[in-house]
Amino acid sequence: MKVDNIFFKKKQSLRINEICKVLKIKNISRDFKINNIADLKSATVKDITFFNSLKYLELLINTKAKYIITHKKYELTVKKHRVPLLVENVLKSVAMVTQLFYPESINDNVDFTLNKVDKKKFKNLKIGKNNLIGNNVKIGKNSFIGHNSIIESNVKIGDNAQIGSNVIIKNSIIGKNVRILDGAIIGKKGFGFFPGENENFRYPHIGMVLIGNNVEIGCNNTIDRGSLSNTVIGDNTFIDNQVHIAHNVKIGKNCIITAQVGFAGSAVIGNKVSIGGQAGISGHLNIGNNVQIGGGSGVINNVPDNTKIMGYPAKNIRKFLKEGR
Amino acid sequence: MKVDNIFFKKKQSLRINEICKVLKIKNISRDFKINNIADLKSATVKDITFFNSLKYLELLINTKAKYIITHKKYELTVKKHRVPLLVENVLKSVAMVTQLFYPESINDNVDFTLNKVDKKKFKNLKIGKNNLIGNNVKIGKNSFIGHNSIIESNVKIGDNAQIGSNVIIKNSIIGKNVRILDGAIIGKKGFGFFPGENENFRYPHIGMVLIGNNVEIGCNNTIDRGSLSNTVIGDNTFIDNQVHIAHNVKIGKNCIITAQVGFAGSAVIGNKVSIGGQAGISGHLNIGNNVQIGGGSGVINNVPDNTKIMGYPAKNIRKFLKEGR
Amino acid sequence: MKVDNIFFKKKQSLRINEICKVLKIKNISRDFKINNIADLKSATVKDITFFNSLKYLELLINTKAKYIITHKKYELTVKKHRVPLLVENVLKSVAMVTQLFYPESINDNVDFTLNKVDKKKFKNLKIGKNNLIGNNVKIGKNSFIGHNSIIESNVKIGDNAQIGSNVIIKNSIIGKNVRILDGAIIGKKGFGFFPGENENFRYPHIGMVLIGNNVEIGCNNTIDRGSLSNTVIGDNTFIDNQVHIAHNVKIGKNCIITAQVGFAGSAVIGNKVSIGGQAGISGHLNIGNNVQIGGGSGVINNVPDNTKIMGYPAKNIRKFLKEGR
Repeated sequence: MKVDNIFFKKKQSLRINEICKVLKIKNISRDFKINNIADLKSATVKDITFFNSLKYLELLINTKAKYIITHKKYELTVKKHRVPLLVENVLKSVAMVTQLFYPESINDNVDFTLNKVDKKKFKNLKIGKNNLIGNNVKIGKNSFIGHNSIIESNVKIGDNAQIGSNVIIKNSIIGKNVRILDGAIIGKKGFGFFPGENENFRYPHIGMVLIGNNVEIGCNNTIDRGSLSNTVIGDNTFIDNQVHIAHNVKIGKNCIITAQVGFAGSAVIGNKVSIGGQAGISGHLNIGNNVQIGGGSGVINNVPDNTKIMGYPAKNIRKFLKEGR
Repeated sequence: MKVDNIFFKKKQSLRINEICKVLKIKNISRDFKINNIADLKSATVKDITFFNSLKYLELLINTKAKYIITHKKYELTVKKHRVPLLVENVLKSVAMVTQLFYPESINDNVDFTLNKVDKKKFKNLKIGKNNLIGNNVKIGKNSFIGHNSIIESNVKIGDNAQIGSNVIIKNSIIGKNVRILDGAIIGKKGFGFFPGENENFRYPHIGMVLIGNNVEIGCNNTIDRGSLSNTVIGDNTFIDNQVHIAHNVKIGKNCIITAQVGFAGSAVIGNKVSIGGQAGISGHLNIGNNVQIGGGSGVINNVPDNTKIMGYPAKNIRKFLKEGR
Repeated sequence: MKVDNIFFKKKQSLRINEICKVLKIKNISRDFKINNIADLKSATVKDITFFNSLKYLELLINTKAKYIITHKKYELTVKKHRVPLLVENVLKSVAMVTQLFYPESINDNVDFTLNKVDKKKFKNLKIGKNNLIGNNVKIGKNSFIGHNSIIESNVKIGDNAQIGSNVIIKNSIIGKNVRILDGAIIGKKGFGFFPGENENFRYPHIGMVLIGNNVEIGCNNTIDRGSLSNTVIGDNTFIDNQVHIAHNVKIGKNCIITAQVGFAGSAVIGNKVSIGGQAGISGHLNIGNNVQIGGGSGVINNVPDNTKIMGYPAKNIRKFLKEGR
């Protein structure tokens, strides 16, 4: 949760009773100031945190935070160590408190400060027609932007960038020598919400998209920013057209990702991974280093290093080809 | 076929001999006025209709229409009840007559009446740069449009709409609290035609796209309008990025559709259906309520209520996981 | 390699020692002029060519070229007939020499000569708002372009063209009666490179996209141009939304390609082929005429004429349905 928040303004602090009001918790009337919401490990004494599984008991014992959002079934456990704030749905409550600290994170679909590119500010930028740029955008030397592209406020892009046409970039920090091809959409909020009968409750996305050096992003890619962590694409990774990368996905270095591949949320991909066209990677999986995934595969389990897999569900590629499925 | 036609101008009426000329039918010289083309059930005495299968015999017996487009093999059957108009290809003939009534429906790829947004007309609309809006567009209060978006003539959008950038909307009626994310293309004609040796014959699309309240449409979605019926997306349904929804598809309420899913034409999806990434739904299928479809599935059969399926072809999810396919 | 190069300027000639310097080959000091790089068969005495497999021995014996880029293991074979230029990686060396002849082919992501449409030049063209057109573009009579579209320099489009909005076309020659729907991106370089530890080496794409007559290209399609050969789409082929067509793919006449299909590089598709939604065709495959490929299929082997296949990997459709996989 160590987000260096250049994109979403955080409230400097909230009082614990403001937070409890939103969570519909009574009897917490003290005027204690809370600076942020964080996980058990990174929370300071001035942060609020949450406890949602006994797996994290040791972290609970050692956390510096005083107030812990948790469920009734963990009340006694938490009480031994800290002050429990009892809620029905822990993750939803975390989302609500996050939104309280970052009130703009939920409604950022459009940056209305965009304007034509001021050529005085971007002296060394080669720039096409009809582009729109927000405030405090930085673009390195020897770069260009095509036509009709949008770069929202605070985005940082390194030297030698080649940004195509009809591109939209927001909430992103991008390295050197990166090419972003036509129609790519980078940095919008992810597809995350708690379903409701009449209205779904969207959770805030205060993560960024971090793109390394020498990366290529293909046409019509959609790369969503993270919710609490970031979406990351490592150095020298090349991505073909029409690829979808969901929130919080981490892709390593030197990967080759061909067209129409999809990554579900929070998947973690190693270095030197190659993925054939139309393959899909389920959420929260770990794919090792030097993994080769055949085209069309549906990967639903973790994959160790140096493995070649194919199929749906994906298995050893020799097995797939031998069995014909 | 009960299309409330605010998008496609219908000719008030055609004479039966004009219609027969197009269908290359002789010997029908009477000067009878026809108001529209409709199915057997909804046709009035002034409409033309069609008969293409004995399954619909009872509807034929009870239809109010006088003139029936049909194939030679049904000539005697139809003759007992009404006046048959004999053609080689019934559906193609229906398309030709539809086009006769709705001459603009086949060539609507672009609305050339678009213009910059007149801020006097849209006083309460927050609006970015370079948007283009057609005639008679209505957008509810407390709404915004990003940048470079196109909203074609007669489109209606409810209150609290959030329209992103590079969005194209045409032939659509949209509820309240709807978010349409960057790059979505909504309401173009569907992929429907009769193959021909030298030239395919496109059939007209006089349907609309109807989107309910509290819906979210992801980036780079393509949602085609209906041919004779409408394409429908129910209240509180959320759709992720790069989803394709073909003509005449009906999606229920409270559905969750993740990235890169595809729906073939005329599929009908119930309420509270969740569909994993990259799954595909074949045309003309019925998917029940509370169905869960695993990522990557290829659904080629109807699915009853309260079912969890996965695989290609999709089957019970426990069976899929147990058998490893 | 018979590329009629209206898009990429070729250097008129290079001296053999300039070429050898780039390939790090010494001892070739003669001042011989080379006009182009070509394959063994089409090379003239003034062209350089390459030899990478004993399969092509007969072509080697008969080639008119004098200098042959090849690997050490073929040194003796080549020496019998011509002058070998020994390199570690033949294909990478071919890419390097190609780039030497076509220096602009590697960096063409954006055409900065684009300008508003000059209505004097395009008298009979119906044209929407905010379109950008390059130099020497030709568009046939009775055509239109929607809004926000980009047509880069030297593109040729036949009569009765219907170009939608947000379309990008470059390096393409397009026939008559073609419709290109909203958001399609046609003619960018393909996804081709040699992986490197720190930086990948992109190979040049000097091929074009050739589109026949009566073709329809769906929304948000991405169609990459060829590397050394062209990407080709035959007459009367219709393509639905969100289809990806990689470099060098050849698609025949009268094909029907539904939504979200993907073609990997250099696949060759016959005439009258129909492909269901989300199917994927592996690279370098040959698909015959009159082939029907079911939705969701993953095709990884060549397919003979008049075959119906489905599955992943794709097999006879009856077998697929009978076995349920």
